[in-house]
Amino acid sequence: MTESDWSGFFADVDTLDREAYITLDYYLECRGDPELAAAHFCAEQSTAQWRRVGSSEDLRPRFGARVINLAVLESNRPEFSYGVGQPASDGGVHACRVTIAHPHGNFGPRLPNLLSAVCGEGTFFSPGAPIVKLLDIRFPDTYLAQFQGPQFGVDGLRDLLQVYDRPIFFGVIKPNIGLPPEAFAELGYESWLGGLDIAKDDEMLADTDWCPLAQRSVLLGTARRRAEQETGCRKIYLANITDEVERLTDLHDLAVANGANALLINAMPVGLSAVRMLRRHARVPLMAHFPFIAPFSRLTHFGIHSRVFTKLQRLAGFDVVIMPGFGERMHTSDDEVRANVEACLAPMGPIKRCLPVPGGSDWAGTLKPLYDRLGTVDFGFVPGRGVFGHPMGPRGGAASIRQAWDAIIDGLSLDEQAARHVELCAAIETFGGAVKPASAESTAQPAGDDA
Amino acid sequence: MTESDWSGFFADVDTLDREAYITLDYYLECRGDPELAAAHFCAEQSTAQWRRVGSSEDLRPRFGARVINLAVLESNRPEFSYGVGQPASDGGVHACRVTIAHPHGNFGPRLPNLLSAVCGEGTFFSPGAPIVKLLDIRFPDTYLAQFQGPQFGVDGLRDLLQVYDRPIFFGVIKPNIGLPPEAFAELGYESWLGGLDIAKDDEMLADTDWCPLAQRSVLLGTARRRAEQETGCRKIYLANITDEVERLTDLHDLAVANGANALLINAMPVGLSAVRMLRRHARVPLMAHFPFIAPFSRLTHFGIHSRVFTKLQRLAGFDVVIMPGFGERMHTSDDEVRANVEACLAPMGPIKRCLPVPGGSDWAGTLKPLYDRLGTVDFGFVPGRGVFGHPMGPRGGAASIRQAWDAIIDGLSLDEQAARHVELCAAIETFGGAVKPASAESTAQPAGDDA
Repeated sequence: MTESDWSGFFADVDTLDREAYITLDYYLECRGDPELAAAHFCAEQSTAQWRRVGSSEDLRPRFGARVINLAVLESNRPEFSYGVGQPASDGGVHACRVTIAHPHGNFGPRLPNLLSAVCGEGTFFSPGAPIVKLLDIRFPDTYLAQFQGPQFGVDGLRDLLQVYDRPIFFGVIKPNIGLPPEAFAELGYESWLGGLDIAKDDEMLADTDWCPLAQRSVLLGTARRRAEQETGCRKIYLANITDEVERLTDLHDLAVANGANALLINAMPVGLSAVRMLRRHARVPLMAHFPFIAPFSRLTHFGIHSRVFTKLQRLAGFDVVIMPGFGERMHTSDDEVRANVEACLAPMGPIKRCLPVPGGSDWAGTLKPLYDRLGTVDFGFVPGRGVFGHPMGPRGGAASIRQAWDAIIDGLSLDEQAARHVELCAAIETFGGAVKPASAESTAQPAGDDA
Repeated sequence: MTESDWSGFFADVDTLDREAYITLDYYLECRGDPELAAAHFCAEQSTAQWRRVGSSEDLRPRFGARVINLAVLESNRPEFSYGVGQPASDGGVHACRVTIAHPHGNFGPRLPNLLSAVCGEGTFFSPGAPIVKLLDIRFPDTYLAQFQGPQFGVDGLRDLLQVYDRPIFFGVIKPNIGLPPEAFAELGYESWLGGLDIAKDDEMLADTDWCPLAQRSVLLGTARRRAEQETGCRKIYLANITDEVERLTDLHDLAVANGANALLINAMPVGLSAVRMLRRHARVPLMAHFPFIAPFSRLTHFGIHSRVFTKLQRLAGFDVVIMPGFGERMHTSDDEVRANVEACLAPMGPIKRCLPVPGGSDWAGTLKPLYDRLGTVDFGFVPGRGVFGHPMGPRGGAASIRQAWDAIIDGLSLDEQAARHVELCAAIETFGGAVKPASAESTAQPAGDDA
């Protein structure tokens, strides 16, 4: 590119029609002139060849992505991060933060085409720039308005449960895989009686021959209604319908007819676009689990920040987003957890809020630290072993969670509350005096041998 | 876990029913005892809580993933790779290679559930092991037999084109986005006359208002038939139908009715399971492009190796897999390119071979080096600018590619052949004397200002 060519990929943001562009923040390491690298980066993700041979046309004004901000964070580093790429031959490696305005008319309101443009070949194969991270994405309201977003959202979910002033209490039924439907349903039933709002299938529990969804959803649906009658409280059975895309709507219909009143889908393995398809059909809340996001989001300077996927999960129509929570155990920084919670709850044009559920090795003792960190009741709390590995069984485990919440409301310490409640006392004895154990070995202790 | 618990997650491979397990190779960095870490790793991706409270059942024999090989590559490193994770408190970090037998009955022949098990939460959130890479996956034949795989495969595609003894010549019509359908179709037509087998939409070209698929496929379909009549050779128009999942089968029907005779889908952005759905419906070859794989595959020791996704794309039913090719420009090691080519062509039980298309900044001069490296004619060659940025236009550009192949057959050097053919001569002048330019700046030169 000549210098006059570069300028076609730069713009003063005030000169652009903001409704015509999505905005993207990237971290970028490049060789050579950072301005040239940023121009190439825009060209590669939009119109790298902007005229036909023999023509004087220029496709850039309408179709070119534009650099609207470029900050060089560090210059003349001897090599790229993470041992990737050749050592710089001259001038070293420059670490930059680039903000780009990308015209969404290039691809339209389509998730697969959006992904192909902003984290596809153009982004990750820009010349001389092997290290890239898509840090954030922002949409104009007119673009957002072409998506349905959550059907229920935080407020709709609260209406379903008639719970307004506290977190929503989830539990992952464990053993997660291997139990027949009868035994599995019994565990769910006990957990509802103990005080869970939502008993859920594990994200790895599929529609298998040893636990068919048809049978499981009948038994859990029946147990759920029985628990509602006995407790006088509304309950949710969250059935995992993660499966091949062509089965999703059938499994939705089957599970809902049998009494499942929310559905779990592993967002990335199934695909966000398939979720958007299911959203058009769904009659119950859709809840996302997070497999297959960490492989591209964990490293600080490479890949795609998980908040981008939280926003896209909300846009695709999830009412709830389960995500890695605080603490060393989940290999996720506090800032990243907070960014994902914010991506669920912050205003997003016409798109409803979805409920964030930051999870990982939770039990009664991790509730207050989590609540204190979030500073809102608009979250879900999702123990697994903390309910289903409790020595008094899931009813006792669920009770210990509710007792921990009551202590918060009553201004009591966990120990004060435990002195009054045997379930909480047993939880503390089992799951550790430490509120959030720091040692990997202790938190990882499988519950198989606890009984 | 106690030591007797660990042993439940180890097995001698000879004692296992091989048809009941998929085999997984992982790179893993862990703190503490590597055997304990590997046992946790298996537990997390299968049955982390293997019995109910108060029960003596043991779900591990049927549902547990098992370590069948563990090699400690390096011990007592002071910290994890890539600046991830806390420094080891004691005993340092151990780098391991672990091979695991995972019982596929846990999830069945379902791609989303397979992904959730082998690269989901269990894999990437194992305690004390933040650095993981899934390196390879192998399937028993009875598992593979539950998938359709490619409908045409390499041999079927050759039958369609009636081309048996040479690579398949693709070209990406450029400018990739922004042209109206008429101008776009004219470029495709010219490239077929010059000698391309397959003229393709760019992976970023969607069904937009400025280039609707309905109109584009009519014009390209007509141009394709005209080119077939004029050349006497079969031609393929590869239409990109990457779009929301719920539109895929409709867009297939539309494009095929209009004369597209192969379809491009961006595998990861659309989702492999949606591709499997489309495969059941498809009447023409399906071809994969590679956006959104590099973010989780580029780094040596973290994420998922791209060969895993090449195998899964083949399993999902793609007849052709376009992938990053050789050379510094594409940020992909030679070994990784070779592994992906092999994943297309190596025996895979009852699943047909698919055609590998390693691409990136190709032109006539990169054909021989690619052919020499691959040592087979079973590949696709896919220039973009090397055909459509040629100074004599796409007809001249395509001719230069065919001239380069003829030189290989006739045992002539590129220069000897160029002395006889003005198109090849012009290609060498335009795209560089270097067979594969090493400088990022020169290879990245957009063609917008070349005319």
